[in-house]
Amino acid sequence: MSFMAAAKVFACPFVFVALFSMVASDPDLLQDLCVANKAAGIKVNGFPCKDEANVTEADFFFSGLANPGVINNSVGSVATGANVEKIPGLNTLGVALARIDYAPGGLNPPHTHPRATEIIFVLDGELDVGFITTSNKLISKSVKKGDVFVFPRGLVHFQKNNGDKSASVMAGFNSQLPGTQSIAATLFTSTPAVPDNVLTKTFQIGTKEVDKIKNKLAPKKT
Amino acid sequence: MSFMAAAKVFACPFVFVALFSMVASDPDLLQDLCVANKAAGIKVNGFPCKDEANVTEADFFFSGLANPGVINNSVGSVATGANVEKIPGLNTLGVALARIDYAPGGLNPPHTHPRATEIIFVLDGELDVGFITTSNKLISKSVKKGDVFVFPRGLVHFQKNNGDKSASVMAGFNSQLPGTQSIAATLFTSTPAVPDNVLTKTFQIGTKEVDKIKNKLAPKKT
Amino acid sequence: MSFMAAAKVFACPFVFVALFSMVASDPDLLQDLCVANKAAGIKVNGFPCKDEANVTEADFFFSGLANPGVINNSVGSVATGANVEKIPGLNTLGVALARIDYAPGGLNPPHTHPRATEIIFVLDGELDVGFITTSNKLISKSVKKGDVFVFPRGLVHFQKNNGDKSASVMAGFNSQLPGTQSIAATLFTSTPAVPDNVLTKTFQIGTKEVDKIKNKLAPKKT
Amino acid sequence: MSFMAAAKVFACPFVFVALFSMVASDPDLLQDLCVANKAAGIKVNGFPCKDEANVTEADFFFSGLANPGVINNSVGSVATGANVEKIPGLNTLGVALARIDYAPGGLNPPHTHPRATEIIFVLDGELDVGFITTSNKLISKSVKKGDVFVFPRGLVHFQKNNGDKSASVMAGFNSQLPGTQSIAATLFTSTPAVPDNVLTKTFQIGTKEVDKIKNKLAPKKT
Amino acid sequence: MSFMAAAKVFACPFVFVALFSMVASDPDLLQDLCVANKAAGIKVNGFPCKDEANVTEADFFFSGLANPGVINNSVGSVATGANVEKIPGLNTLGVALARIDYAPGGLNPPHTHPRATEIIFVLDGELDVGFITTSNKLISKSVKKGDVFVFPRGLVHFQKNNGDKSASVMAGFNSQLPGTQSIAATLFTSTPAVPDNVLTKTFQIGTKEVDKIKNKLAPKKT
Amino acid sequence: MSFMAAAKVFACPFVFVALFSMVASDPDLLQDLCVANKAAGIKVNGFPCKDEANVTEADFFFSGLANPGVINNSVGSVATGANVEKIPGLNTLGVALARIDYAPGGLNPPHTHPRATEIIFVLDGELDVGFITTSNKLISKSVKKGDVFVFPRGLVHFQKNNGDKSASVMAGFNSQLPGTQSIAATLFTSTPAVPDNVLTKTFQIGTKEVDKIKNKLAPKKT
Repeated sequence: MSFMAAAKVFACPFVFVALFSMVASDPDLLQDLCVANKAAGIKVNGFPCKDEANVTEADFFFSGLANPGVINNSVGSVATGANVEKIPGLNTLGVALARIDYAPGGLNPPHTHPRATEIIFVLDGELDVGFITTSNKLISKSVKKGDVFVFPRGLVHFQKNNGDKSASVMAGFNSQLPGTQSIAATLFTSTPAVPDNVLTKTFQIGTKEVDKIKNKLAPKKT
Repeated sequence: MSFMAAAKVFACPFVFVALFSMVASDPDLLQDLCVANKAAGIKVNGFPCKDEANVTEADFFFSGLANPGVINNSVGSVATGANVEKIPGLNTLGVALARIDYAPGGLNPPHTHPRATEIIFVLDGELDVGFITTSNKLISKSVKKGDVFVFPRGLVHFQKNNGDKSASVMAGFNSQLPGTQSIAATLFTSTPAVPDNVLTKTFQIGTKEVDKIKNKLAPKKT
Repeated sequence: MSFMAAAKVFACPFVFVALFSMVASDPDLLQDLCVANKAAGIKVNGFPCKDEANVTEADFFFSGLANPGVINNSVGSVATGANVEKIPGLNTLGVALARIDYAPGGLNPPHTHPRATEIIFVLDGELDVGFITTSNKLISKSVKKGDVFVFPRGLVHFQKNNGDKSASVMAGFNSQLPGTQSIAATLFTSTPAVPDNVLTKTFQIGTKEVDKIKNKLAPKKT
Repeated sequence: MSFMAAAKVFACPFVFVALFSMVASDPDLLQDLCVANKAAGIKVNGFPCKDEANVTEADFFFSGLANPGVINNSVGSVATGANVEKIPGLNTLGVALARIDYAPGGLNPPHTHPRATEIIFVLDGELDVGFITTSNKLISKSVKKGDVFVFPRGLVHFQKNNGDKSASVMAGFNSQLPGTQSIAATLFTSTPAVPDNVLTKTFQIGTKEVDKIKNKLAPKKT
Repeated sequence: MSFMAAAKVFACPFVFVALFSMVASDPDLLQDLCVANKAAGIKVNGFPCKDEANVTEADFFFSGLANPGVINNSVGSVATGANVEKIPGLNTLGVALARIDYAPGGLNPPHTHPRATEIIFVLDGELDVGFITTSNKLISKSVKKGDVFVFPRGLVHFQKNNGDKSASVMAGFNSQLPGTQSIAATLFTSTPAVPDNVLTKTFQIGTKEVDKIKNKLAPKKT
Repeated sequence: MSFMAAAKVFACPFVFVALFSMVASDPDLLQDLCVANKAAGIKVNGFPCKDEANVTEADFFFSGLANPGVINNSVGSVATGANVEKIPGLNTLGVALARIDYAPGGLNPPHTHPRATEIIFVLDGELDVGFITTSNKLISKSVKKGDVFVFPRGLVHFQKNNGDKSASVMAGFNSQLPGTQSIAATLFTSTPAVPDNVLTKTFQIGTKEVDKIKNKLAPKKT
């Protein structure tokens, strides 16, 4: 394909893109509390509720964000969620936290949280952060310890630690389970695999390049 | 009133209380972004949107949580919000943060955030925290640096620093403007004042005690 | 604590308060009817649904508001709900009624319905009613038979019968189970008890006064 | 058309009907109050908000339900709303009341409130009431003074006073403006008119019968 | 009843009607997927979810709209739904399709989808379509192959094929089970029957005419 | 980076990913209609409403989906929306359609509609379609004329025409403006550009490969 042809690739889709957008929110609760009962033997939207007599303060508590997560991957970052999976009391309450830790040079690669806006508070270090609108406009900023930044619901965003020391953020979400779809992993490491001819046409690269990316992104077999 | 009579005071209302509960969520957005336009000259549910061409990264940024708030009151705590009033980009996005700082012995007195659940991450120090359900059950816990605790939407809750050093938390909310109704201030310091005969009957105290509380809680005239 | 110090108590929190607010609504139904099945042996957000073949007109009917409730407490009022607990057909429908009766001098003490706005129609008598905003502004009015008044979602409100005859109202709510959190009962009669040092600091009173209020408000042991 | 043919008319649509259903709720508010500003010169979903400094207790008050409405029509009933059109403070609050009065023999003809469930409290008299599900099942009951009955959101329902004295009800709705679509008026008195060939085929009657109904239901020209 | 009397019939209700309206939306999902588990033995708002390990592409697929439905009734139209009853993967996803086929002269008689807006794309033929607002205004248009038209949530609407060839449309809805309440069938063919005195007063016709319509609309006994 | 290191890249993020998900819905309307007034001179969430007197049937009509869109790009597909931008009557109604046309071999490249589920009906031809969950599971199927398939809200999905004739689909969405974020365009063609070191680390490729993709995907300068 020639450059001229390539240049046309997204000309039409862009117009389409510019008209569209995104949003979300959890449904509301119908009683004070509906602490997730994961032993209920039935699955509903969210979780069934524990018997109120068995609810304790432990259902609303989590200590797993106290320390930085262990980073042992190539992107150099790790996220630890404090959502309904970890805190059963969050069921029906529509909020969650996560801690993200970054090695020097670490990247939280482009991803979406389709049913939540994310608002971060920088606990430590410095980060270059950004999100892209559906009109393909990048909105980015350098933030440092104590700063707050917002990633609107559903939009692709990333954080990059370009400094030479570790960084970490506390992130708030307006969903009990905000969801993360990491772009590169979604396209290159799904099971079964996304067909090669979808990937070559999407990124305008050859099958060989696709295979190379797949190999590099593949979860490690142990 | 005798003890026996007093004992009956809330017997019936309690039954009523036990049947009721609480919940909330912000409405969803209808485009990528609707950055609050506070100069629009018109007020709607939330805010009108800025012209998209004028949206910048500054609309999604806030540095005002970087340092502890200055505590110069008798309760010994201060909250600093990072909501749509401070971050116009949060308009229609349904999330906010706040930083709360506590002097040794400081109290964030009983209050509600009627349209948001609060989830806190302890940045520093130790706190005794709790919320009360509409069945009048107190759920409380001691939390320390790195711990997470949840205060369900609409329920009365408090945090008390019983330690001898300062404490601070980062709080996430699922509303762009969660709302705070501080119980004692609401009842004893409103303008105009809540009638004395409402307060004496509510707390089963005399007019003199009501006046004493009003005086102590009155905002300082300078 | 001196008066000057006391005067400062809520100076900072007030600023915070003014930025916040409240709201709520029940989630929507996904079929014509989902009559509450209280024998289902499982608890979800709201209730599971009865088999449609067993639904009858009785599921949508309630006669328990026909007569005034019996008032045998010190506040001099009693509320009787007509919500999903009494009318299983209300499940997923997002509405409820309640009848409140007041003896001469009776008070429905300050409380919140965190997930519902309340709109009252005065069936009989006269009442002084009011609610307080999160900016600490009291909005109050005297209402009489046939009048309608609104208490916005989540805000603290009360009704006082200052007349010398009984009064009663019919109240509509936009929730199948609106929830009531009666302020004084919540703080002074919960199980376990709210710690004394929270209450003394909140109301700027001594432990003795706290105990006196607790005793007076304690539910009667029979 | 023969009886046999007629009998088939809705055979297929009925299957379709049984699979479908209905629901609704108002969006949530984003601040304490958003009192409707009807002089704003701009129309949004609901209403823009008045300046908070101009909000008074009158915005939450209505005395127009105190007396029975005047019935001067052939169906023998009249409804008087207490919704956002009458009570500007209801804007964004998601609730409304209405008073319905019935002459002896009076009918509130079949209609829907598409975005609200209705819950009635009988103030006086006796009524035969009912609603029809989308499976074409009639759920009906005789109710008398003090009784409560529920009409689920969106379903066709009616009330008939078969007694020999007047009746009246107080109705609660979970919408600031619930909406009423009266079936016969909708089909036979709209402007412009629904085409005759739609009406004849719908009710399997002749053009002459259609004209007769149109004439009888036409609003009186004065 | 005289013409003058008849003319007054809806004078008052019309005023009421004009103040009201309609709306709806499905609650949001709390995980990627909640494929309807119809064998769960318990009924909730919507459906419980299948075990994620058993989810397949078949749960999101339906081939039943490929061919025109068989029209064997007097109205001359048939609707075929592609909703959560047919596509279990639609559970919690808030969308559905339907195909409607019309014989020459065929009518999709006046009906409501109380919890969904309908948007049609004409696959073939020509149709006269319309909806009526709660202010009793008919909004109608002739549409042909390739055209799109919208029927707002909850409002009574119809489609009539006045051409001499068959027609068909693809309809989109914003509900997993939008619900259909066909006006004539609802009033004249429910079980048990709507009382005759309701129908005679509603349409200002005699008992004999009511019986005639009932007979013609009655589902065929086989 | 070695293969072993590369293999670890997403090991940790995957765990995170599996706990998260996505959802959305438009807020509800508060009157029959709120036809978008694009000349209002003020921007709100969605659009302000036209004066009801000026509403006509044209506000609910669109003929722009009648013919296949012109495909003049390298991916070989084009989408044409029928949303609130084209049909002002859709404002507050929460639904939209789109037509997508595919040349032989054409691809609608991986993208998300963050606030809408998409349900397609194949108008013509054959397509290989699929979506990927946040657990990185691909759910895919070959569909042909007359088939229906669902792409759950927010999840990355694509359609590929592997046949040798053109194909087209009609797509329904549960949002008035569903939003499209095309993955490759978002990452490689935004303005300003996503930093190279984000893209190289995300796809584990070199700067040269990044530039090559950027060049190929860049919108054509004319």
